[in-house]
Amino acid sequence: MNQWVYLFSEGSKEQKDLLGGKGANLAEMTKLGLPVPRGFTVTTEACLYYLNQGNQLTDEMKMQVITAVKKLADQTGKTFNDAKNPLLVSVRSGSKFSMPGMMDTVLNLGLNDQTVEVLAKNSQNPRFAYDCYRRLLQMFGNVVMGMETADFEKKITALKKAHGLAYDNELTALHWQQIVNEYKELYRKKMNREFPQDPIEQLYLAIEAVFNSWNNSRAKTYRRLHDISDDLGTAVNIQEMVFGNFGETSGTGVVFSRNPSLGDRGLFGEYLINAQGEDVVAGIRTPKPIQVLAEELPEQFQQLKMICEQLEHHYQDMQDVEFTIEREKLFILQTRNGKRTSKAALAILLDLHKEQIINEKELIQRIEAKDLAAALHPNFEEQALQKRVAFLSGLAASPGAATGAAYFSAESATEAKARGERVILVREETSPEDIEGIAVSEAVITSRGGMTSHAAVVARGMGICSVVGCEHLNVLNESRATVNEEMIEEGAILSVDGTSGKIYFGEIPMEEVTHTVALDELQAIWDQYSTIQVRANAETPRDIATGLALGATGIGLARTEHMFFEKNRLLQFRRLILADNLAERLDVLKELKTVQKQDFKFIYQASLGKATTIRLLDPPLHEFLPKSSDECREVATELGKTFNEVERKTENLAEVNPMLGFRGLRLGVVYPEIYQMQAEAIVEAAYEVMEETGTVIQPEIMIPFTIDATEFAHVRQSIEAAIITSLASKKDSLNYQIGTMIEMPRACFVADEIAQYADFFSFGTNDLTQMTLGLSRDDSPRIISEYLDAKILKDDPFQVLDEAGVGALMKLAIERGRQVNPQLKIGICGEAAAHPKSIAFLKDLAIDYISCSPFRIPQAKMSLAQAKVASL
Amino acid sequence: MNQWVYLFSEGSKEQKDLLGGKGANLAEMTKLGLPVPRGFTVTTEACLYYLNQGNQLTDEMKMQVITAVKKLADQTGKTFNDAKNPLLVSVRSGSKFSMPGMMDTVLNLGLNDQTVEVLAKNSQNPRFAYDCYRRLLQMFGNVVMGMETADFEKKITALKKAHGLAYDNELTALHWQQIVNEYKELYRKKMNREFPQDPIEQLYLAIEAVFNSWNNSRAKTYRRLHDISDDLGTAVNIQEMVFGNFGETSGTGVVFSRNPSLGDRGLFGEYLINAQGEDVVAGIRTPKPIQVLAEELPEQFQQLKMICEQLEHHYQDMQDVEFTIEREKLFILQTRNGKRTSKAALAILLDLHKEQIINEKELIQRIEAKDLAAALHPNFEEQALQKRVAFLSGLAASPGAATGAAYFSAESATEAKARGERVILVREETSPEDIEGIAVSEAVITSRGGMTSHAAVVARGMGICSVVGCEHLNVLNESRATVNEEMIEEGAILSVDGTSGKIYFGEIPMEEVTHTVALDELQAIWDQYSTIQVRANAETPRDIATGLALGATGIGLARTEHMFFEKNRLLQFRRLILADNLAERLDVLKELKTVQKQDFKFIYQASLGKATTIRLLDPPLHEFLPKSSDECREVATELGKTFNEVERKTENLAEVNPMLGFRGLRLGVVYPEIYQMQAEAIVEAAYEVMEETGTVIQPEIMIPFTIDATEFAHVRQSIEAAIITSLASKKDSLNYQIGTMIEMPRACFVADEIAQYADFFSFGTNDLTQMTLGLSRDDSPRIISEYLDAKILKDDPFQVLDEAGVGALMKLAIERGRQVNPQLKIGICGEAAAHPKSIAFLKDLAIDYISCSPFRIPQAKMSLAQAKVASL
Repeated sequence: MNQWVYLFSEGSKEQKDLLGGKGANLAEMTKLGLPVPRGFTVTTEACLYYLNQGNQLTDEMKMQVITAVKKLADQTGKTFNDAKNPLLVSVRSGSKFSMPGMMDTVLNLGLNDQTVEVLAKNSQNPRFAYDCYRRLLQMFGNVVMGMETADFEKKITALKKAHGLAYDNELTALHWQQIVNEYKELYRKKMNREFPQDPIEQLYLAIEAVFNSWNNSRAKTYRRLHDISDDLGTAVNIQEMVFGNFGETSGTGVVFSRNPSLGDRGLFGEYLINAQGEDVVAGIRTPKPIQVLAEELPEQFQQLKMICEQLEHHYQDMQDVEFTIEREKLFILQTRNGKRTSKAALAILLDLHKEQIINEKELIQRIEAKDLAAALHPNFEEQALQKRVAFLSGLAASPGAATGAAYFSAESATEAKARGERVILVREETSPEDIEGIAVSEAVITSRGGMTSHAAVVARGMGICSVVGCEHLNVLNESRATVNEEMIEEGAILSVDGTSGKIYFGEIPMEEVTHTVALDELQAIWDQYSTIQVRANAETPRDIATGLALGATGIGLARTEHMFFEKNRLLQFRRLILADNLAERLDVLKELKTVQKQDFKFIYQASLGKATTIRLLDPPLHEFLPKSSDECREVATELGKTFNEVERKTENLAEVNPMLGFRGLRLGVVYPEIYQMQAEAIVEAAYEVMEETGTVIQPEIMIPFTIDATEFAHVRQSIEAAIITSLASKKDSLNYQIGTMIEMPRACFVADEIAQYADFFSFGTNDLTQMTLGLSRDDSPRIISEYLDAKILKDDPFQVLDEAGVGALMKLAIERGRQVNPQLKIGICGEAAAHPKSIAFLKDLAIDYISCSPFRIPQAKMSLAQAKVASL
Repeated sequence: MNQWVYLFSEGSKEQKDLLGGKGANLAEMTKLGLPVPRGFTVTTEACLYYLNQGNQLTDEMKMQVITAVKKLADQTGKTFNDAKNPLLVSVRSGSKFSMPGMMDTVLNLGLNDQTVEVLAKNSQNPRFAYDCYRRLLQMFGNVVMGMETADFEKKITALKKAHGLAYDNELTALHWQQIVNEYKELYRKKMNREFPQDPIEQLYLAIEAVFNSWNNSRAKTYRRLHDISDDLGTAVNIQEMVFGNFGETSGTGVVFSRNPSLGDRGLFGEYLINAQGEDVVAGIRTPKPIQVLAEELPEQFQQLKMICEQLEHHYQDMQDVEFTIEREKLFILQTRNGKRTSKAALAILLDLHKEQIINEKELIQRIEAKDLAAALHPNFEEQALQKRVAFLSGLAASPGAATGAAYFSAESATEAKARGERVILVREETSPEDIEGIAVSEAVITSRGGMTSHAAVVARGMGICSVVGCEHLNVLNESRATVNEEMIEEGAILSVDGTSGKIYFGEIPMEEVTHTVALDELQAIWDQYSTIQVRANAETPRDIATGLALGATGIGLARTEHMFFEKNRLLQFRRLILADNLAERLDVLKELKTVQKQDFKFIYQASLGKATTIRLLDPPLHEFLPKSSDECREVATELGKTFNEVERKTENLAEVNPMLGFRGLRLGVVYPEIYQMQAEAIVEAAYEVMEETGTVIQPEIMIPFTIDATEFAHVRQSIEAAIITSLASKKDSLNYQIGTMIEMPRACFVADEIAQYADFFSFGTNDLTQMTLGLSRDDSPRIISEYLDAKILKDDPFQVLDEAGVGALMKLAIERGRQVNPQLKIGICGEAAAHPKSIAFLKDLAIDYISCSPFRIPQAKMSLAQAKVASL
């Protein structure tokens, strides 16, 4: 025999699967001896059985419900239909997860033509009694029988009109009695039968209605959208009624055990005297802050406060508690973990830990990435945001929020900034030339490109908010764009939410930053739980400083091509790639070496002797080529070449698939002098900084795009020869390493061979993902969004590491590499590595560090600690 | 004690490592009892020891040489310096592999001021004796001592001038005697010592000179270019002199045991009476055809013929034999396998097999791919070709040879063809629109793209000769191009060699095709040796017919997008991809379905019920987009859309990396109606052909670009639903399969999951190579050529399967796929699969078939058989 029904005194909070969330918590509070109105729960298993048996309550279920009602009578001294002390109950649904769309509450069940009179007599308040009865009729009619609420409300409106009254509270007992009669008549007409006078029949119907609501379309849709299984079912909670509307010593309210906006300790919430829960929700009367209760009903306030503290300790979390006071007696109707803002979430967790309510591991596990991200970046005011509708959305490429004026070129953005405007840069896509424009902007929006596009990577690196790949954005020229039919002119004010990927017209107020998160405290805790270090992807002194401030143990990826984004250098770089012969290249390289050496000195000075990995040039060359005839003409003038020369050379260098083209160390094979110049600059700069500061510098030179051991050895030999010549006698005093990116599938398969020549590996998950999935970061946003919609992909593989493909390749490469060289240093420097979902996978790989953009470092550390704790 | 010296009678043909090729064959012929001038060989080991010991002959070596000379004296009855019968020898180098750059021959060694007189007396011909002596002086001075040949020749010229003579043969004995004196004087002056009169000293110096020549720069370069180890060393052959210039019963010649141009049986070669080998080479007298010898010296001719036959049987190959007749006595000076033309090579092997000189396995193993390819395609006349210098070269994309007039657009090519011209199509790169232009051309040349570019694939499919990726070709517009400074105007006559990748100005005569290879005979033999079938990549009835004629067991890849290359269809296809909404797409699809269905019917009719794999659309869409504003305008007019619409849509569809973009089944996910239309057309056409012809058709529907099992299942379900609806009640009578390309690294890792839904796998090695190596087929030619030059790559990975990366992925996918589904049918349809080097690897994989362009089928079958035989 199945147990379909549990008394509250029989269950516990662990039984959410069986009793639903609400039922389990009511049982738990009962067990704790808290003043919970007594009752019982019909289980989720009963629901599923009912739905499988053709939507029929079985005799067994009915019998168990009757038995439970009898026990409730024993506990309360009240029975259904009793002439002196009739039992009234509430009926509420309650599945494992809170779920809008399920059946609402039915209150006052057990009232009928007889018991309403008893209630009137016992309460000495007929008006209250008839109001209760008509509420039952209305709720039962609506939520159990599916009648229209409006049909009921019309009756009240008509009556008030007939008597010239404005408000419900002007209606008398007689009025409500008349409404009750009209409601019964309405019920008879619509349902073709009488309102059931038998409380047991009322109860069966209400239970069936709750069960049936599991499969209504709203609930189904919600479950589909939130990935909740259809096989959970819902429980039904039947609970003795308590009345907050029994006069001036009664009341009802909702209270948080801490401030859910800011996280401060102390009760936070509001209440109404002489009211039921509905009245609080209806908003006709203004509730009072909970602190006022300390004066109105000091004893009950103290009791509530103690119970909240007890619950918080017991649940080890901030609680959201519903209570009712019936004639001075406090009842707790529900408790659950309270919702809170991101800022509050972190503060509460840290406080709970300090108060020893949760231990370190719990602290680590319960921080959510979104809360941490929000804490590190500005946000829009939550309430203001909810009132606004975004006109455009895209990929949330870099978190934060900003309002500013739209500009469509780096030049106009820079000028506007110089005039004192706050600027939003809007582009089809960005390229190295836009780098200064990005730096002066509050946010960057692009119509193309994915999470690892140029705009996304650069903005994230700088901590600037960014939304990319906005499909519906159509940038027409350098002064306007359209979104669907809407025109965006230069200077239009936009608000950009980089956390949600949404964009709004006009200004949205920013959240006031009143609390700063004690990030250092958190980092210190996290660091104890991970052997994998976290480095920063950074090359500018500013980004390096940010990275170190946010806890980086070194620089995992300094991209030397980023250094050529600045306008004058871009010109030099173009001279280099457009050069006709070695002599011309050597000429440019001589100048570039001076510049690069200075760059590297800045890097070493900023990175304070910490491990610093510098990647040699890895351009898809097209990023640096002139994009149009006009640009060719301009470049020709600047370089003193003919337009035809520049155009022809540009055409020759253009590639059909630049990602699969002349990149990385292929450059080092074809033009060895370029890598040689860089290697010389790297070691010479290191030597000089060591001499100047006494700090030991150990540069790690990283060669990108390797696919073969011979290839790597070839390039290594070439640059090492240059280094040895360059440092001559000084060589002994400088330790440098030469390693490689592992970012091509082939490199993973031949990792054992490559490891014979490489001092370290660093996985480039962006490129590895592009190649493994045949998916260009630039062209993928649309495809990925279609695939996510069709549930073919669970996550964007550029955000969350693809374990089955990319992950498997990494595993292979690590195994093979370490086989040959057990000491091989292994890192990961793609964007996906820092994602919490990726880290759960990565932590089991034998890697030494991950490297990510500075602002993602805290999150990466957190995820590493969480993954570690989860595995303990 | 090491044996540094071997008499000819001590060695054998297996000892090429020790005795060098020439020495081993001289020993072998000695062993066979053939009339070889007696002699001995100083070993390669002696050479290496010598070089390691500071270039000194050891006493041990010298002693062994002296011992060998004594034995030679015993055999010949001649000794050095003998007053009656002086021993004269030739000294020749001879390493394992024939190697230009090594020391030349020294003849007549042993002559000095005394023995020359004996020779004069014995021969009764002082002129001959002094001529021999002066030849020794000249050769010794030049090749042993490094003196200039010109300095010697000047003496002769001066003497002739002084006496008013024109030719050497006008010089008398006295003249030669004077020359000898002048040569000795020259030697004394240049070398600061006397010409050594001691034959032993002459011999030591000659041996040392041969040894030293192993390390001269010409030899080193040759070895590096031909991948020959520096550790082999060279042997030295010392052999009794025989003289073909001893009068009218002496002579010398070179003979092949069969015709090296055509392969016919019977001696082929030429000879000179009363001459030495040098005279034949010098070309002063015209040699006679060897058949004339049958009349001049019939006995010797018969003996030579029998020896050639004996050698051919013994070496199991056509021989290239040098002989000398000294006063009616025949001597064999050298034998080696003869060089031959491609056509001769096949004919000779088949004949050798028929004559039971070689068995089936030897026949299979000894056919070379280049010979087979040359036999299947037209070639330029070898001799004519050698006189020409190519002005341009590129990748040899499709074999064959052709001469014609250059045209730079498909239209002008088509028009010229209509006027009766033979046409060479010259383009920067080709696209689907060029397809008709290619079809009418004799050859296609492009300046961009690799072995798997559009031009290469289409030309190969059609059997049209093609050279692609000609870096120095600069196509300026539709009427001219430049190569470096040279202009090529429309109509210029070009000759294209698709086998070597070279292009020439003007016409080159074609080889006369007098022999056709008995391909059927060969195929029948090959087929017995392979369990792996060979299918054709083909979709036009013509290509399918070619494929079947060349032995295909089915169609492994019919590309449905190729069907949209034709001009009218291209327009429809553009309508499809430029459509704004589903309704518009469905509209186009309705029309396209009729067309496609007819295509498929043609395919089924042509493929005669053989297995036929049809791949659903796999465009990188950009191939089908308008390429310029003009084209956009044209398309707009044709489609009745506005220019702006077409331009905007084209821009939206443009991708940065189309190979990694919106391709393959991604199209089937986003626009299911397109794949559904194709699937319906495939099965409906199959059904109709079955009804019409009674042939059972079993279409294999292939889905490209899969990366995930869910993705594949999603698309499979979508097209299967359409098929079921489309065939309704007929469904039972048609067996179709639905499988997938495996061409992304990720697909290989999740092959076990995909195999749960797929009926077959077909590896696309082109895309798999692109992704695994991060190398675009369009952009790679330059990179690959640099990598081949730098010896980083051994082969172009688009021509020879990359085993370490691509091969490893295939292995993985096969293992995982078969794990789940042991019956899974597995094929390979990339270009690299058919390459002989790839097949050696592929044959060990558990695959069912490979599929390649029709003209590569014979080669693929041959390689499969060869790989099989090699493993027996």
